[in-house]
Amino acid sequence: MNATPTRTIDKQETAQLIGSDMVEGTNVYRSNGDKVGEIERVMIDKHSGKVAYAVMSFGGFMGIGEDYYPLPWSMLKYNTELDGYEVNISEQQLKGAPKYGRHETWDWESRDRGARIHDHYGVPPYSGI
Amino acid sequence: MNATPTRTIDKQETAQLIGSDMVEGTNVYRSNGDKVGEIERVMIDKHSGKVAYAVMSFGGFMGIGEDYYPLPWSMLKYNTELDGYEVNISEQQLKGAPKYGRHETWDWESRDRGARIHDHYGVPPYSGI
Repeated sequence: MNATPTRTIDKQETAQLIGSDMVEGTNVYRSNGDKVGEIERVMIDKHSGKVAYAVMSFGGFMGIGEDYYPLPWSMLKYNTELDGYEVNISEQQLKGAPKYGRHETWDWESRDRGARIHDHYGVPPYSGI
Repeated sequence: MNATPTRTIDKQETAQLIGSDMVEGTNVYRSNGDKVGEIERVMIDKHSGKVAYAVMSFGGFMGIGEDYYPLPWSMLKYNTELDGYEVNISEQQLKGAPKYGRHETWDWESRDRGARIHDHYGVPPYSGI
């Protein structure tokens, strides 16, 4: 296993910008290499054009039984070695994290819910609103 | 043609937030209903988490000969009647617009290019940088 980790830097990614389609489907790992989940989509604030959350899917099989975890965008740090986002969420932290199931409704508009997400991960809320 | 235009408001969209996967593939129309192109992806500023551009594809067939037009995010207004984004770009304006081909490189980092995009459409530059 001496393959050098590579990632094609193309029109979908530069040092500063990244294409939404390149974020979607990217795996999320802990620093030790454990896979936590993968990014399903990002939620964009229509008015400000700011990414409010990245939604990580976790668990289940082929979409069945999956749960969706809204993560603050600022938590996503790309790690070329892991070839994915390095987000240190412990199993314990994941258990209590705000989430919704495939057939559940998530009230994105709720400021309370937004605050709960940011509180849970201990990061400042996004300033889009 | 008296079908009521409908659009499912689900977990990928609310009044304030929209999922990146819902923006991708959405058609862009002029107010008169002419199709201009479709949104390929959005380019996100990694640091600020702000959408810098929406990339619209236009022309070609099955991806061959297509051109890509970076549009300022603020230009995209969703119109339920058109069931797509209403962006009034004239054919003339499109001809002179900043674009790149499938096999061309676009220097996203260039402030000059960014300024050119915003100048061309007459909208203020995004404040992510």
